[in-house]
Amino acid sequence: MIRIMERHYFDWAATAIPDCTSTLQKSEAAHCFANPSSIHEEGRAARKVLEEARSRCAKALAVKTEEVFFTSGGTESNAIVLFSQFCKPNRSVFLYSAVEHPSIRENAATNNNATPLERFGISCAAIGVEKDGRVSEATLEKALEKNPGARMAAIMAVNNETGAVNEIKKLSAVLRKRQKQPVHLHCDIVQAAGKIPLDLDDWGIDSASLSAHKIGGSRGIGILWLKKTITPLLRGTQEKGIRPGTENTQGAIELAQALEKYAAPLHNNGSLPSFYSEAEARMKTLIAGLRNTGFFIPIPEDRCEEDSRFSPWILQAAFRNKAGKIIPGEVMARALDEKGFAISTGSACSSRETKRPVLEAMGMDKETSRGGIRISQGWSTTMEEINFLVDTITMLLNSL
Amino acid sequence: MIRIMERHYFDWAATAIPDCTSTLQKSEAAHCFANPSSIHEEGRAARKVLEEARSRCAKALAVKTEEVFFTSGGTESNAIVLFSQFCKPNRSVFLYSAVEHPSIRENAATNNNATPLERFGISCAAIGVEKDGRVSEATLEKALEKNPGARMAAIMAVNNETGAVNEIKKLSAVLRKRQKQPVHLHCDIVQAAGKIPLDLDDWGIDSASLSAHKIGGSRGIGILWLKKTITPLLRGTQEKGIRPGTENTQGAIELAQALEKYAAPLHNNGSLPSFYSEAEARMKTLIAGLRNTGFFIPIPEDRCEEDSRFSPWILQAAFRNKAGKIIPGEVMARALDEKGFAISTGSACSSRETKRPVLEAMGMDKETSRGGIRISQGWSTTMEEINFLVDTITMLLNSL
Repeated sequence: MIRIMERHYFDWAATAIPDCTSTLQKSEAAHCFANPSSIHEEGRAARKVLEEARSRCAKALAVKTEEVFFTSGGTESNAIVLFSQFCKPNRSVFLYSAVEHPSIRENAATNNNATPLERFGISCAAIGVEKDGRVSEATLEKALEKNPGARMAAIMAVNNETGAVNEIKKLSAVLRKRQKQPVHLHCDIVQAAGKIPLDLDDWGIDSASLSAHKIGGSRGIGILWLKKTITPLLRGTQEKGIRPGTENTQGAIELAQALEKYAAPLHNNGSLPSFYSEAEARMKTLIAGLRNTGFFIPIPEDRCEEDSRFSPWILQAAFRNKAGKIIPGEVMARALDEKGFAISTGSACSSRETKRPVLEAMGMDKETSRGGIRISQGWSTTMEEINFLVDTITMLLNSL
Repeated sequence: MIRIMERHYFDWAATAIPDCTSTLQKSEAAHCFANPSSIHEEGRAARKVLEEARSRCAKALAVKTEEVFFTSGGTESNAIVLFSQFCKPNRSVFLYSAVEHPSIRENAATNNNATPLERFGISCAAIGVEKDGRVSEATLEKALEKNPGARMAAIMAVNNETGAVNEIKKLSAVLRKRQKQPVHLHCDIVQAAGKIPLDLDDWGIDSASLSAHKIGGSRGIGILWLKKTITPLLRGTQEKGIRPGTENTQGAIELAQALEKYAAPLHNNGSLPSFYSEAEARMKTLIAGLRNTGFFIPIPEDRCEEDSRFSPWILQAAFRNKAGKIIPGEVMARALDEKGFAISTGSACSSRETKRPVLEAMGMDKETSRGGIRISQGWSTTMEEINFLVDTITMLLNSL
């Protein structure tokens, strides 16, 4: 049986459709195949290409070249910062927002004594979020008051399940004002780079993590941006000792291309690039269309069509059936999948779990939490696809 | 000025010339771009491709599919095993051969109290090597006698600087016989996979690490083979909790291709593949040719033309000038580079350091150690290139 069906990809937050990987010239890749740590001509050529890629990434992110370190991805970038806590002479408290990505949250979560950080005497405490899923000045103040020993904190820029955007600059100001001793503030920008305007230098943070495959690059490459140096747990010589292992030169070139294409245009303050305003227009159409069904519950419930608290690339939503009961997220996702739409419930990293800790941290009741699906769009998503998605959901809601 | 010069690559131990990365069909890559943890059709397709790649890798290595875990490379595979020590309720002694790759050695080295393992109460002790750079039953016995609390040991299959091949099966038998309590034996096979016959199951080891880019695959992907499970320091859901981070599907396919091409043929006991016997013939010609110069010092000095103690893919050697003085390795490497040969001194991972801990662990004097260069060949190296290399070195020795 031949199955012909147009597919529509709405899981860009899990991974982007590759973009820059296909544009790499084979000759370019062949030119830089050597180990960049080798001192012969081939090694030096690879080093040159790697350093050019670093400098291009830095320029696209509007930071200094020497602050950019290549890693194998967002998870490793987060882990390097997290476990650098181990190496501090004065082990203290690590604060993390309750809605952080699993690569932070699961290594620090306080409801389990056996978490890696806690087992080694580092206390961990969550920073609460408001109902909209964002860390507020008040929730941060409260966490700092309870944990005066905090020396490191992690607050993500854009939440991967809800699209909630944290006002990092405001939060870092609160942190700096409140704590007399230095606090290392780490920011996961995996869902922010190339998606929303960012200004790492201006935000007052000390480090940031991003992943190439979320912005059209390949797997196995990411960036750890370090404003101030840290001592990583793992020793090695590459990347100035920050990340050992042979450098992924080709991945770095592809990442530079992706950042130039999508992150750099978001720096020109004032005039946002058309791909951003188009994403906003599509999100507005999507939310308005879904609201029209009469069975739509945006998550959080007060998220509106144009809402600066949220990234225009991610929508979390639940739906009621005609009987008024909330449709489980996995039922909705499966039904949409059968109609040709690739949609997730929460994070791909925990797609096989039924718990929704991010939504529960927002004070959401369990039933609505389990009804949540995540619709995430990308640069090549079209308005036609959005309309088709709305029509399909409308049709499904009349049948479920 | 246009510079025309044929280049000859003799640094395959640092990284291989890409082989399998160019054979990947773009359609194949496009088919599996989704996040393998996503549950929609695209995600399931990517999962299928990833699991097929895992099964192909397992078959090529003659191990069980469920024992193969994808990581970002050899360094990370080693780190996962190393830092799983942190998670043991009974923290004890970690033994490592004195010539291990920096990704093991530098995290455990005992001459520095601040190494990551030692700072957390895990004692580390080196297993000495014989003059030929190999761990012997005697050196292992001695280390075990001194460290009865040993619960984990790392002994590499092929040394990356000298090509010394450890008889892992014999050594694991000594370990199993000597220690009553279970000892986790880890084996770095980065320079062995696709290079020499290996039989992980028969060797009596518990885990092994390999890196794709050393056998013609791409950067950012490797394997951790686990015969018995471990508790990694970093938590996550992917790779059954062994290695968090979005899976590198494309890298996994390329790695499967590389292992099928080079590792699988080395399993057919009795009849070794032609690429192996050809490498042996080239190594024999190389050593004989260099010996003819009269200024050649193989490292170790008793390494001969056909020597089963060493991998035919790697030669470490020093040279004397006409005055009888040993030529510094970096001088020799630079002179050869200028003549078109890409050759390293030691490991690319420490190419910017002047110390040669691997050679010094073999009891080599400092002067000879600093004279060492590493000539490593690959599957596409030709006998003509070997002869040209011998001629060039002969000529250089008459001028230096």
